[in-house]
Amino acid sequence: MAACRQRIAAREAVLRAFSVMAEPAATAAGQAPPGAEGPLHGLPVGVKDVLDTADLPTAYGSPIWEGWRPRADAASVAAARAAGAVVIGKTVTTEFATRQPGPTTNPHDPAHTPGGSSSGSAAGVAAGFFPLGFATQTAGSVIRPAAYCGVVGYKPSFGLINRSGMKIMSDSLDTIGVMARSVADCALFAGAIAGVDLGDPDLRPDRAPRIGLCRSPAWNMALPETVALFETLPARLEHAGAHVEACELEAPWFTRLQEAQPIVMNAESGRAMAWERAWHLDRISAELRGRLDWGLGQSEAALAEAHHTIEKARLAFPLASAAVDVLVSPSAPGEAPEGLGWTGDPAFNLIWTSLHVPCITVPAGTGPAGLPLGVQIIARRGEDRAMLAWAQWVAAALAA
Amino acid sequence: MAACRQRIAAREAVLRAFSVMAEPAATAAGQAPPGAEGPLHGLPVGVKDVLDTADLPTAYGSPIWEGWRPRADAASVAAARAAGAVVIGKTVTTEFATRQPGPTTNPHDPAHTPGGSSSGSAAGVAAGFFPLGFATQTAGSVIRPAAYCGVVGYKPSFGLINRSGMKIMSDSLDTIGVMARSVADCALFAGAIAGVDLGDPDLRPDRAPRIGLCRSPAWNMALPETVALFETLPARLEHAGAHVEACELEAPWFTRLQEAQPIVMNAESGRAMAWERAWHLDRISAELRGRLDWGLGQSEAALAEAHHTIEKARLAFPLASAAVDVLVSPSAPGEAPEGLGWTGDPAFNLIWTSLHVPCITVPAGTGPAGLPLGVQIIARRGEDRAMLAWAQWVAAALAA
Repeated sequence: MAACRQRIAAREAVLRAFSVMAEPAATAAGQAPPGAEGPLHGLPVGVKDVLDTADLPTAYGSPIWEGWRPRADAASVAAARAAGAVVIGKTVTTEFATRQPGPTTNPHDPAHTPGGSSSGSAAGVAAGFFPLGFATQTAGSVIRPAAYCGVVGYKPSFGLINRSGMKIMSDSLDTIGVMARSVADCALFAGAIAGVDLGDPDLRPDRAPRIGLCRSPAWNMALPETVALFETLPARLEHAGAHVEACELEAPWFTRLQEAQPIVMNAESGRAMAWERAWHLDRISAELRGRLDWGLGQSEAALAEAHHTIEKARLAFPLASAAVDVLVSPSAPGEAPEGLGWTGDPAFNLIWTSLHVPCITVPAGTGPAGLPLGVQIIARRGEDRAMLAWAQWVAAALAA
Repeated sequence: MAACRQRIAAREAVLRAFSVMAEPAATAAGQAPPGAEGPLHGLPVGVKDVLDTADLPTAYGSPIWEGWRPRADAASVAAARAAGAVVIGKTVTTEFATRQPGPTTNPHDPAHTPGGSSSGSAAGVAAGFFPLGFATQTAGSVIRPAAYCGVVGYKPSFGLINRSGMKIMSDSLDTIGVMARSVADCALFAGAIAGVDLGDPDLRPDRAPRIGLCRSPAWNMALPETVALFETLPARLEHAGAHVEACELEAPWFTRLQEAQPIVMNAESGRAMAWERAWHLDRISAELRGRLDWGLGQSEAALAEAHHTIEKARLAFPLASAAVDVLVSPSAPGEAPEGLGWTGDPAFNLIWTSLHVPCITVPAGTGPAGLPLGVQIIARRGEDRAMLAWAQWVAAALAA
């Protein structure tokens, strides 16, 4: 905790990872209920500010909620504290975890975005402000900022981490995830919160994986550094012993996810924001207002078709990926874009969020500007434990 | 509004439908945002106290949350107000919408339960305290109390009414529904909240329905009055012109829902209540504590198997019901049980909640104690509009 506070004191003025920090007295004594002991004992945690906290203001990245004090912790935060974690602060989110950025900068270059919407958690883990961070993903808000900041980001299977006390925007897509410096730390943290055993990814499996190389329906978004990375990736994985084969998802229910996900997301968000729209419309950003209006303006037929596409893709994915243990795919189009006005494109992420499957990004070198790149590992819904083990295998292969 | 307040003044001391009432000044001027106009203009609405309200305390039926004042309305409540509805008060819920009853009595006989968990909304609609009430269902909390109180209760397809600002207990099952005196009022109210057109059920379809008589896997719970009702029901529906055939759901994924639903519900609720369990365990009722512990104690294998059963049943239901327009099934084992300590059994309801399908109860005469019985009409997910029209057809046939 002391080391974290030292790094925060040195860099937070530029990084701006926190929306609010806990007072030293609030972290000194721990925050677990009486008698609780757990695997996160004493570990500082950054909590994305879309999760309620009983002891810190919670504003969901919006001026509408400025200064709001929930009575309770979100269930996931309460579970983290009950396991011994100590909340060191709330981390910056974009406006309601959508697109309008907060002030956070990329710890590798403050002229670049850290990605979003989990901007503060990604930057804070990368800068050593806290070893564990809460994140959430509706399109690409765990994987993309983690990749841009060079940390590990894990979006579990839909429903693994309980969402009670999270500001829900898209009920059928919003997923709580975590960020850390290693796959093993993600497994420890997420397992403790979810109340499941996610295994120890550092225990090396006794065989090499079958890996599906999935450039994915978003491949036309790939920037040159990602194209280059994926040209050499198969050989590097094979060199480490993996069997690698192509596993593109070319059926129409997969390719149409790029159109279907934004329809469902914005239609649900528009309805979820009924109170904010009715009473505080002028304090919603113009861009978000536009997206909500677009979602609410979708016809019943268009919305039903989008749900149908997603449902069909979910049902088809197990068979489409049956030949392999995991897929690997880009975590983002490329390096973090320059500027703080845009958090980057979630095209490589919304596919997996829509499918409700687990995915994780691990660092994979740097691009032309010297900023981090990531590789995303994906498995079928419910296969989180196996995916984490294979992700560590891939991370080790890339580091070799 | 004045007539409602008169009825409340006369009967609320015995009925105890409200956890808190709005001041007359708070309902006199309407509650819509400036410029809003809508199909619920001026209609008094009772709001189950598991939905947040910005102007009234919200306690989720628990002493842990006594006096809590949310900043915002739940999205569904905000949508109702934006459509012109006027919240007349918060209605009694059982503890966190589970089993521990509140003080509400049955308006047909105060010695009997009104059912639960949406006790106050059901009793209040029945007594004319408000024409429209919010309800929620995780096992049987819309349909059962509506049937026990002799009103119409409608649980839409999962996801139709947005849950933002609801106290979520079981994320994969919790569903917001409505209660009213007629099918048409339910369609008007739910349509306005959800932002969809649910049609006008009073417009009679130009053909008679094909109806599947589904005694259901819960049939062994049926009391004599329900057995008698279902002996005459086919002939009454056929007399009105319907084609009636048996449509039992005997495949194992349907029969096992009775075991699978409580596992998923309590495992999710146990995790959702992490904050209450960590800090206020002594103010959770012994029965609920027991249920949460039981849910949290389920093995990963048992939980996966329960999810698998429910998933398989959801996928199988469209084909299993393909020969008919709607199913009819009991709304509850029988009349409302005597006493206020137990809200009755949800066995005839948890099937449909698990399947995420729309269902609705309409009054169907009385039992041996002179208390209301109901018949439940069920359709496939997304077929809410057609189901409402056929429900009105069935209600008219039963009233003939």
